[in-house]
Amino acid sequence: MPPAERILQGDRLALARLLSELENQTSQGEATLGELYPHTGKAHIVGVTGAPGTGKSTLVNRLVQKLRTAQPDQAPTVAVIAVDPSSPYSGGAILGDRIRMRDLAGDTGVFIRSMASRGKLGGLASATGAFTMAFDAAGYEVILIETVGAGQAEVDVASRAHTTIVIDAPGLGDDVQANKAGILEIADILVVNKSDLPGAARTLRTLEMAMHLALPASGSLGGWDIPVLATAATTGEGIDALAAAIASHRQFLLESGGWGERERLRTRTQLEQDLAASLMASFLDPEIEARFDSLVQSVVERKLTPRAALDALLGEDSSSRR
Amino acid sequence: MPPAERILQGDRLALARLLSELENQTSQGEATLGELYPHTGKAHIVGVTGAPGTGKSTLVNRLVQKLRTAQPDQAPTVAVIAVDPSSPYSGGAILGDRIRMRDLAGDTGVFIRSMASRGKLGGLASATGAFTMAFDAAGYEVILIETVGAGQAEVDVASRAHTTIVIDAPGLGDDVQANKAGILEIADILVVNKSDLPGAARTLRTLEMAMHLALPASGSLGGWDIPVLATAATTGEGIDALAAAIASHRQFLLESGGWGERERLRTRTQLEQDLAASLMASFLDPEIEARFDSLVQSVVERKLTPRAALDALLGEDSSSRR
Repeated sequence: MPPAERILQGDRLALARLLSELENQTSQGEATLGELYPHTGKAHIVGVTGAPGTGKSTLVNRLVQKLRTAQPDQAPTVAVIAVDPSSPYSGGAILGDRIRMRDLAGDTGVFIRSMASRGKLGGLASATGAFTMAFDAAGYEVILIETVGAGQAEVDVASRAHTTIVIDAPGLGDDVQANKAGILEIADILVVNKSDLPGAARTLRTLEMAMHLALPASGSLGGWDIPVLATAATTGEGIDALAAAIASHRQFLLESGGWGERERLRTRTQLEQDLAASLMASFLDPEIEARFDSLVQSVVERKLTPRAALDALLGEDSSSRR
Repeated sequence: MPPAERILQGDRLALARLLSELENQTSQGEATLGELYPHTGKAHIVGVTGAPGTGKSTLVNRLVQKLRTAQPDQAPTVAVIAVDPSSPYSGGAILGDRIRMRDLAGDTGVFIRSMASRGKLGGLASATGAFTMAFDAAGYEVILIETVGAGQAEVDVASRAHTTIVIDAPGLGDDVQANKAGILEIADILVVNKSDLPGAARTLRTLEMAMHLALPASGSLGGWDIPVLATAATTGEGIDALAAAIASHRQFLLESGGWGERERLRTRTQLEQDLAASLMASFLDPEIEARFDSLVQSVVERKLTPRAALDALLGEDSSSRR
């Protein structure tokens, strides 16, 4: 039986193999993904992001348990993609932090996969889109994408998800507080984790205040009121409310037409990234590569400005541009 | 007098205007930068990165003071570029945290500039290269680039700097600890800030251990032993040693040939980014843009796979690729 068919029938081993193929960008993996693509579009893709120290991995773990056990007969199947060098599912596992995963082992309705680029920051994101498609086609109903949040990574996860959860925690210092304006642009659900620690009330208040300032006069963003939830992943407090908020946001998106809008955004982002990579790859043939090196050298020696080097690469007269 | 000449003569106002032009990507700004480029190449570019909560901004502030006052007759001039939505120099200033900057106000040997993209995550980095060149040409001897560190941002700052300082702090949780493997690949100097807090000794030990594990048998990376320093930015403890380590690393780079190597890497990274942006800009004419939208729609409707859409954009037969 071809791999695509086996994956559609729920074969976990075939799925695991496909993920490895996709990570290594093999042509076979791409071909299988192409066959699977028509079967995608059903999963609820949820991005979870937050700075280091917010306890995001523990929270994701708790959330998965909650989703799987709340209503056993209609529990959604869940996939977790950990795009995070600091996640216990990937980097952290090196240091022996495998304990959290054990709670979920043996549940065939859960599939946890980290990006394997251990010890290498950056370049983690490229396979995320492909992984999401594979899990979606394989029938996973909720796909959690866990990323470490700071700057670009947060924006990236938001453009890949239907629902974006941003996690904060007390005690991370005022520079985190200052980040709120940007976070509000991407969050559908705000969580203050570690709410059992001192300072949690202040963090909650700051978030609520920042959100109030950012809101238009109507009091909501396109009809969705961003909830600000308090959780304590270690005790499980507030996880019920978080699971409920995720389900509500899905319902809201489906009813408001936001679902299709986010699908378009997601697809557009992916296509733009693929296009940029393709254009670079086809532009940089061996001849240009050699030219590239010599131009870099000229720029280093201050014989050319960076702009003149770029124009030379593109075969344009530097004075004629802009 | 033309702007470039005024900047070369130390006119701060002309420099401030150029930075604004560069931020807005005007053709006049680019032209001025082109004239300035031959005068660049002298500054020591130092990247400073660390997760939110490590106290990086306070440390940068202390470091600038130290560099300016240690040996008054030969103190280097210093520029700070805060590429960081959470920096008190940019985002944080909104919340009234301007106090730190005041310590340095009035010193004409210091120029602090943040990226002005307030409340907007992402897209901050594009002007960093241009800002660095402008400060370099204007004669600033040390250029500190402060970025919030997590994932890609850390790699970016490393490819833009001669010397990369990675800041950690106690109490940020085990997921930060797990990040060490990646950090070690880019750090030239490791700092445990907030060393007066409980847990600092443990954080120091963890870092030293992680580094020991990562080191080749020779015991050093290319001849440079990455120092692990303890600082307390609030009291000023350890700042002397940090300033000394920065100077040592510069000396090491100059003597080992590493300086030229990093210049090439820096130039190459910038040229690659500019090329990718240019290729996309010239590829996406209005006709293609319209086609792009309709292809996105087809992919959303599962009539086309993302790969087939990409091939259609590039005018290639999907079956003939790879």
